[in-house]
Amino acid sequence: MTQVLSTMSDEIKEIATIEGVSEEFIRNGIASGTIVIPKNKKHKIEKPCAIGEGLLKKINANIGASTSISSLEFELKKLHSAQDAGADTIMDLSVGENLDNIRRSLISECKVPFGTVPIYQIASSVKNIGDISLSLILEIIEKQAQDGVDFMTVHCGIKEEFIKDIEKRTMPVVSRGGSIIYRWMRKNKKENPFYENFDEIIKIAKKYGIILSLGDALRPGCLADSTDCAQIKELITLGELRDVTHSYGVQVIIEGPGHLPLNHITANVRLAKKITRNAPLYLLGPVVCDIAPGYDHITSAIGASLAAWAGADFICYVTPSEHLSLPTPEEIKEGVISARIAGISADIALGKENIILKNKKMAEARNALDWKTQEILSIDPEKLKKYCLKNKDSCTMCGDFCVFKVEKI
Amino acid sequence: MTQVLSTMSDEIKEIATIEGVSEEFIRNGIASGTIVIPKNKKHKIEKPCAIGEGLLKKINANIGASTSISSLEFELKKLHSAQDAGADTIMDLSVGENLDNIRRSLISECKVPFGTVPIYQIASSVKNIGDISLSLILEIIEKQAQDGVDFMTVHCGIKEEFIKDIEKRTMPVVSRGGSIIYRWMRKNKKENPFYENFDEIIKIAKKYGIILSLGDALRPGCLADSTDCAQIKELITLGELRDVTHSYGVQVIIEGPGHLPLNHITANVRLAKKITRNAPLYLLGPVVCDIAPGYDHITSAIGASLAAWAGADFICYVTPSEHLSLPTPEEIKEGVISARIAGISADIALGKENIILKNKKMAEARNALDWKTQEILSIDPEKLKKYCLKNKDSCTMCGDFCVFKVEKI
Repeated sequence: MTQVLSTMSDEIKEIATIEGVSEEFIRNGIASGTIVIPKNKKHKIEKPCAIGEGLLKKINANIGASTSISSLEFELKKLHSAQDAGADTIMDLSVGENLDNIRRSLISECKVPFGTVPIYQIASSVKNIGDISLSLILEIIEKQAQDGVDFMTVHCGIKEEFIKDIEKRTMPVVSRGGSIIYRWMRKNKKENPFYENFDEIIKIAKKYGIILSLGDALRPGCLADSTDCAQIKELITLGELRDVTHSYGVQVIIEGPGHLPLNHITANVRLAKKITRNAPLYLLGPVVCDIAPGYDHITSAIGASLAAWAGADFICYVTPSEHLSLPTPEEIKEGVISARIAGISADIALGKENIILKNKKMAEARNALDWKTQEILSIDPEKLKKYCLKNKDSCTMCGDFCVFKVEKI
Repeated sequence: MTQVLSTMSDEIKEIATIEGVSEEFIRNGIASGTIVIPKNKKHKIEKPCAIGEGLLKKINANIGASTSISSLEFELKKLHSAQDAGADTIMDLSVGENLDNIRRSLISECKVPFGTVPIYQIASSVKNIGDISLSLILEIIEKQAQDGVDFMTVHCGIKEEFIKDIEKRTMPVVSRGGSIIYRWMRKNKKENPFYENFDEIIKIAKKYGIILSLGDALRPGCLADSTDCAQIKELITLGELRDVTHSYGVQVIIEGPGHLPLNHITANVRLAKKITRNAPLYLLGPVVCDIAPGYDHITSAIGASLAAWAGADFICYVTPSEHLSLPTPEEIKEGVISARIAGISADIALGKENIILKNKKMAEARNALDWKTQEILSIDPEKLKKYCLKNKDSCTMCGDFCVFKVEKI
């Protein structure tokens, strides 16, 4: 990682101050692969962040067009909504048309690290998924790297030998990238090209200094498939590929674990951390209940808080429209705040002093009926103002029987 | 509990079927105090429920007027919103004027067990809190019992000897009922009348067959006060009073534990269960993060899911307007659904087969793109319809790249 560390001095200094850790702690984490800093030389990042062990939890917001709804203007609104709500990173998951233009415009406006899932553009470039070629895969990965993408998800862990495990599932493959690759593999009766040509992909990542996020194509899409053989076999493969990536001096993240019941979460996080030598763990979910569409920002905030407390580092937000529709800017805000609540709750449980102090100051402001300070300390000052009915003296909930006023009655 | 059991045959039979347990299991639970069935002879309950060990988690919704906003019509709307969203019980926490009328109207429309906190009407009946007399306390408790209230919160565990612990806190007393009693105790320099005259209160409860819910006046109101001496001393007192109540053959619930960081939740639940001989535990929170006003339905859903999984039985909902304003009917719905998600997540983790099966059916419907079945199985069919943009074939999130459609590309 000497090469990575040599280009990161400024970022490491800035991040060490924000995190309240030493620069050496971050350097050692990067060297051993427990911490990453996303940074493509071609992307000017105003708010850099580090992700991994011993650091504050980070939040990613997914945006991107679909074949149903595609508008650069809408995507820019979503980008700003996510940034304003406090997302630490943003991923463009666009599929469909005009993808180069959308991505380049988003990157130029994106102040935080920016990620993509290249298989989406690859699949959008062919008529039939079965026609995807290795040269197309490498060409698009390199194009996105040249555009300044800081981290990329590659679904390199799904293998032909897992197909019989996948077929036993209630929901075979629910990862969108994974489903495309699974389709390609079965159509062509060949091994996953991202697995077979992983060295070629690493070389591009190294050239541009970008992070590979090893995608979990086989994350369970429902509680019934949680912690099954398909998921765990893929995780073991990701662990092997983590070692290969690290040996090239390329930074690497592991993605997981999808829909899990509460009682599987800690075990999954511990397992993933052990198998991947404590690589930063990027949470998809965990969604703890399948029957709450419209509320999956809550089902996943429950799962993510527990997973982050158990050691996961990076929380992919889930919006209320998950499983139902492309999110609006308002839903994106709701998703980012919900994920931040999960991260903050875990940071508190893990003893992060600055966060604990901020919560204590909030309590003092509540006790003093100091609404202005509450607003400043609040995770979403706008929401506080919306609910507070401008009654400066107490809220309308208890009126005169406010516990902080009862002393006077 | 022979008397209680003799009047409950019909309810026990109905509940045993719903819960998928034997009638004997429920009878044994009531006899040993680990299960309660709220039922005042004077209230016709259409949807009875049992609360406690080995049963599905139950949800309570608090409604009620404040001195700022008081309207019977508004309260009735809130009652119906809570019932429609699936609350298992409802509590009227009204303070201010016209309380008899509001309570009686609500009880007559309430199909589920109905609870109150008599100290609110007691305090609303006097000009100065210090003037509250024992006769007024007993008179109002009896009046509410006569009206058909099924369960009542009494803050009998806060004692004079805890004052020095309370004064050390960041937020001394945040329970509204608790703050009134604390004010009375300091004003009159006397012991808590609910503690001193607890036998008198039990006698009224026994006469009407109602449940006493032992309130946690000293629940922490912020993370900084979590699991402190004031809280634990009160819990120990509640454990003693639980034994007294049970010895009279009166059903009893324990309330707790307020704002707690994630890493205190399981310990708190286990402690409360041990100290109270596994009495049903009624959750207030746990709110796992203080800085998210406007999102406390989420902070408490996180805490409640973990606490319910650890053994708590009864979840008091929290609405998005908690700490800020009296909730609207829409916010009440949001609060009930969020609390139900916490309860269901815990039920799944505890192996409740019917709930697990329902989640599996949802997964099968998702996999088949069967939107109609998803709607039926969904915790909130209206919300699903709102998000789903009527695209019968797939949602707009992934469009043609829906994982359940990729097979065709």
